[in-house]
Amino acid sequence: MARFKSAILGATGVAGQQFIEALLGHPWFEISGLYASERSAGKKYGEACTWRSPAPLPDAIAGTTVRLTDRILDDIDQYDIIFSALPSDVAKKSEGDCAALKPVISTASAFRYEDDVPILVPEVNAAQAPLVRRQQKERGWKGYVVPGPNCTTMGLIVSLKPIQDTVGIKRVWMTSLQALSGAGYPGHPVLDTHDNIIPFISKEEGKVELETVKTLGSFADGNVIPAPFKVSCTCTRVSVLDGHTLSVFVETNAPFTPEDYLAAVAEFNKKCAAEFGDLPSAPKQTIVMKKEENRPQPRLDRDLEGGMATVVGRVRPDPALDNGIKYVCLSHNTKKGAAKGELMAAEYLHKIGLFPA
Amino acid sequence: MARFKSAILGATGVAGQQFIEALLGHPWFEISGLYASERSAGKKYGEACTWRSPAPLPDAIAGTTVRLTDRILDDIDQYDIIFSALPSDVAKKSEGDCAALKPVISTASAFRYEDDVPILVPEVNAAQAPLVRRQQKERGWKGYVVPGPNCTTMGLIVSLKPIQDTVGIKRVWMTSLQALSGAGYPGHPVLDTHDNIIPFISKEEGKVELETVKTLGSFADGNVIPAPFKVSCTCTRVSVLDGHTLSVFVETNAPFTPEDYLAAVAEFNKKCAAEFGDLPSAPKQTIVMKKEENRPQPRLDRDLEGGMATVVGRVRPDPALDNGIKYVCLSHNTKKGAAKGELMAAEYLHKIGLFPA
Amino acid sequence: MARFKSAILGATGVAGQQFIEALLGHPWFEISGLYASERSAGKKYGEACTWRSPAPLPDAIAGTTVRLTDRILDDIDQYDIIFSALPSDVAKKSEGDCAALKPVISTASAFRYEDDVPILVPEVNAAQAPLVRRQQKERGWKGYVVPGPNCTTMGLIVSLKPIQDTVGIKRVWMTSLQALSGAGYPGHPVLDTHDNIIPFISKEEGKVELETVKTLGSFADGNVIPAPFKVSCTCTRVSVLDGHTLSVFVETNAPFTPEDYLAAVAEFNKKCAAEFGDLPSAPKQTIVMKKEENRPQPRLDRDLEGGMATVVGRVRPDPALDNGIKYVCLSHNTKKGAAKGELMAAEYLHKIGLFPA
Amino acid sequence: MARFKSAILGATGVAGQQFIEALLGHPWFEISGLYASERSAGKKYGEACTWRSPAPLPDAIAGTTVRLTDRILDDIDQYDIIFSALPSDVAKKSEGDCAALKPVISTASAFRYEDDVPILVPEVNAAQAPLVRRQQKERGWKGYVVPGPNCTTMGLIVSLKPIQDTVGIKRVWMTSLQALSGAGYPGHPVLDTHDNIIPFISKEEGKVELETVKTLGSFADGNVIPAPFKVSCTCTRVSVLDGHTLSVFVETNAPFTPEDYLAAVAEFNKKCAAEFGDLPSAPKQTIVMKKEENRPQPRLDRDLEGGMATVVGRVRPDPALDNGIKYVCLSHNTKKGAAKGELMAAEYLHKIGLFPA
Repeated sequence: MARFKSAILGATGVAGQQFIEALLGHPWFEISGLYASERSAGKKYGEACTWRSPAPLPDAIAGTTVRLTDRILDDIDQYDIIFSALPSDVAKKSEGDCAALKPVISTASAFRYEDDVPILVPEVNAAQAPLVRRQQKERGWKGYVVPGPNCTTMGLIVSLKPIQDTVGIKRVWMTSLQALSGAGYPGHPVLDTHDNIIPFISKEEGKVELETVKTLGSFADGNVIPAPFKVSCTCTRVSVLDGHTLSVFVETNAPFTPEDYLAAVAEFNKKCAAEFGDLPSAPKQTIVMKKEENRPQPRLDRDLEGGMATVVGRVRPDPALDNGIKYVCLSHNTKKGAAKGELMAAEYLHKIGLFPA
Repeated sequence: MARFKSAILGATGVAGQQFIEALLGHPWFEISGLYASERSAGKKYGEACTWRSPAPLPDAIAGTTVRLTDRILDDIDQYDIIFSALPSDVAKKSEGDCAALKPVISTASAFRYEDDVPILVPEVNAAQAPLVRRQQKERGWKGYVVPGPNCTTMGLIVSLKPIQDTVGIKRVWMTSLQALSGAGYPGHPVLDTHDNIIPFISKEEGKVELETVKTLGSFADGNVIPAPFKVSCTCTRVSVLDGHTLSVFVETNAPFTPEDYLAAVAEFNKKCAAEFGDLPSAPKQTIVMKKEENRPQPRLDRDLEGGMATVVGRVRPDPALDNGIKYVCLSHNTKKGAAKGELMAAEYLHKIGLFPA
Repeated sequence: MARFKSAILGATGVAGQQFIEALLGHPWFEISGLYASERSAGKKYGEACTWRSPAPLPDAIAGTTVRLTDRILDDIDQYDIIFSALPSDVAKKSEGDCAALKPVISTASAFRYEDDVPILVPEVNAAQAPLVRRQQKERGWKGYVVPGPNCTTMGLIVSLKPIQDTVGIKRVWMTSLQALSGAGYPGHPVLDTHDNIIPFISKEEGKVELETVKTLGSFADGNVIPAPFKVSCTCTRVSVLDGHTLSVFVETNAPFTPEDYLAAVAEFNKKCAAEFGDLPSAPKQTIVMKKEENRPQPRLDRDLEGGMATVVGRVRPDPALDNGIKYVCLSHNTKKGAAKGELMAAEYLHKIGLFPA
Repeated sequence: MARFKSAILGATGVAGQQFIEALLGHPWFEISGLYASERSAGKKYGEACTWRSPAPLPDAIAGTTVRLTDRILDDIDQYDIIFSALPSDVAKKSEGDCAALKPVISTASAFRYEDDVPILVPEVNAAQAPLVRRQQKERGWKGYVVPGPNCTTMGLIVSLKPIQDTVGIKRVWMTSLQALSGAGYPGHPVLDTHDNIIPFISKEEGKVELETVKTLGSFADGNVIPAPFKVSCTCTRVSVLDGHTLSVFVETNAPFTPEDYLAAVAEFNKKCAAEFGDLPSAPKQTIVMKKEENRPQPRLDRDLEGGMATVVGRVRPDPALDNGIKYVCLSHNTKKGAAKGELMAAEYLHKIGLFPA
């Protein structure tokens, strides 16, 4: 079968490289065009970017000439789909321009908070996927924009979903211990993070609070109705290369024990396997439960299921809540929480017939 | 003035070394005896221990012959006070034996949870100090045992005290990011902590939950009545040398803004300065408020006030609570949360006439 | 083809786990028996060991009952080959007992310095392999012992070999920056290595100095004649998980430029590919030359060629030497410098007909 | 006594801050003017810079208005001495302009390699100090420029000096393990250094090779004659906050044992104490010898003598040399190897009557 032709915008940056890595050898998509800013345009990809993945960069990619993102419209007929890893400040215009013609799958936050845009995570809100039809209709677009959530939101919403699906959620308090790679490159100077914690990540807490209730919201009459619970976050940066660890306290709508959570997760995993098991990037187990009392740990667990698992452990009753549990959750911020997660969303759109658009 | 003669139990371990460091040059106490286990007894201190502080070990201490902890009773008449840094499993017997004759100030948890034992932190629960009289009466002791709290409890209770003193606390959710030194020596193998987080510290969460309501409890008719609120903790270990960072969410009994907290802290600091300002180990500011949005940070802020400050920042409303705030708090686990903090408790007992006993 | 049946001694330790990882899916060898000390014997492997590799432990291995190393002789007829990851202090007896009957391939140092024992690294000293015949003859053994070199020696000798093969070596000064995993588990307490360097590794320097001239020695009349040059080492431990980095200064016997070294390496790689390219564990490129001025770097380069490459960069003239160069070299201490490297030696012994013995 | 009035150029950068820290409370010098680039000029110092030292910034300094470096000549009559922490690219002009009128003491490399400029380290080359008279004469300057050496050179030359003073040096091979702070701020992105080594520091090796023979050179007829030995360096960056560790191999001109080195150091320390013991910034022991086999270690030893000691350990014979030793050396790169070291040079110039000029 001929594979779908894809272009990558922002291809030389860290997120763009992750799209390339996620797409290498993909059975449904092939990399047909690489776009970046003026600094890189016109150069061979191998010269334009400092390839940061330990996986080797294939010669065919290294030898591809990078084109200018601003000129993507000249070529857009050649592509079936656009993967965007653009910085959010330039994403609004470029992604919108492309979406008028083709589906755009993005890691940027530019469109996340618009009413007619789903932040699509199949395991969490497959039901919101048809929102792209409203986008097309209202905006007169042939394509659409589908962004993924913030990398910190990802682990939270996947781990909350089995609770929402059973007893329901009332309130959530979450403290993140986020990996260094989440700040992109160059990111933090080592003199800021060495032997240290930075207890602040600009705009992160608001994004997570907002995206959590949007992604877990219901979909009715072409609208997403945010989930009716409240989220409060404190986001910190710690000296870990990859993998965001979350300490989560959840107040539920009714009595809910750790055993209830384990049962809900088992059910959820079964459902995800049934619905998404045929997607090439889907993990076999959406949530991997760790029984050891000192897990999940980012260095040991972040690469489970090719970085696509949400790893949960330390599920305990919450002594401050009449109804509720607390747990620790780990999600790979540059895999599940970035390009590879977005790619799975694209796969899902294809499966349900929304792509090709 | 002649200084009080003090003995240190468990003198060769990390906590014992911290007692020595805290006592060096102290105006009220002098180090008169060093006690440790069989492995060290009979040796010069300088040979028996691997001195870990960057502060140099004075020759007089290095040349002191270490005696056997089990033989402390033979010498106890020579001392005015006993500082105990014993491991909790042996502390129960040795500290009890000593307390029959002399005041014992301890970093061990052995006596913390007994009804007639105050976990004394002057800024938080000076009112509980008279509990030592009940100890003496009921146990027939001439001395008493006064332990300090767990090093993670310390930052939490100091930062909560101004809230309790104003609007009152309903519930607390706390996630700790604890320093490596909190595990003692040898503590964690580096292969466990390198590029990693360990989201579990044995028994820590239960200790903090229990000690918080005990230390913040009221004192009436010779009894501590635990504070009427609930605490839920998740404790983690991160790659930071010293300084425990806490992410705290507090539900209050009535509306309470970040500005209210700043005002309450200012008032609290003023009161602490008035009541404890004359104690040699007391910080000038009990709580140091940081205005920068990315502070406190352990490497930059842990040594404020000689490691005796509780450093608080990022005070914000909590969007998941009708009434409440969230903030980040830092406390030096091997200074304020260990020997130096205990020493301040001893100073306070002297000030109010409970020592000498 | 039926695969050779192998037993692993010391199977639960870190080095033993690395043998298991290296053997999983191997086309020539299968894991048929796991042996360890009394603490583990009788348990299922999955319970007896804390599996430390990110690669998942197969159920078949996890379910294997661990047997007592001291009883290996009871079972030895079942095996074609013994892989030993025993601690050096117990290796002497156990390995010797086994070698009387079967070939033993070992990561231990117990036999390394005996006259009739080759420290076999095919790319470096394939010519020394027949020394096992002398072992068999003089000791009356049916099998033999073949140890590998110290993990720090490995990178040094592979990188020196192309120099020895061309112009010849006069003297070598080497400073190592060794990875944390080299100390085994538990290894270093993190309080010793955090924000620190430990400029000493017990016995390491002597081992490297001795093994370098033995492995690079000539073989004549059944004897290894140590290479006629001198080596001086300083070995340090730094905060890197895996991968030993070496700073090497080499005085040569005649003029030798960086360009000469590049040419010698190209020739050496070609020869290695021809002679060892058919061994399953052999790297495609024995030495990977990095052209970037700031490489090799352990985190980015240690996994090249599945951890079996010796990565060299920064080749420059040495301004203190009339004839000589300096360079930086990286070798994966728990792959090439441990079990996987030994496995390649076993593969080579098979290829040349020395195994089965 | 009235203190000398000093201006600091480049006062807001990391090196400038180190000058301020070194000068706080100094008995001979006071801080009278702060100069920086356009970005900072006109602002209060406390607002213009992000103060990075854990030592608190005094209010008087924080409240000082920063002036523009380019306008220093307008004010220069107010100062007795200029401390320059300018980036090397702008240092050439500004330092030269100032030196026409006043003594300039600098951490920049701009003037280091000029024939009439001493790289002054009192313990190493006090004899070269009169070179400033040649500077004044040939350039027609009333003042002069005296730079210090590169921070990596510092530990090397101090530790070599006792060898040069006794048996003489023939060749030196040195590998550095340099601290993160040596790269300034922002310096390295943490994604480059986390779990990693960077085996390259731009231009560092050439600087150290050149400066070593210049500083250890003889002084005759107004000329520095470079020391007649050769130096070869490999410089690397490791994950340590402060303190450069050097692995040094030294070929000597005649037999020289580790015991000889210890004796030479004892003699050297005695001489330094006699000649420089009255300088406020001088360490009591110029070289601190560590007897433990695993020292010096940067985290434990860098702050000895207020960061002004050169800490040496692991002194051993060198098996590759007929005559020579090897050792490990540690020097605090932001104290002895930066502003505080320069300040000691200024103190020495005052002591010998070359300042005031």
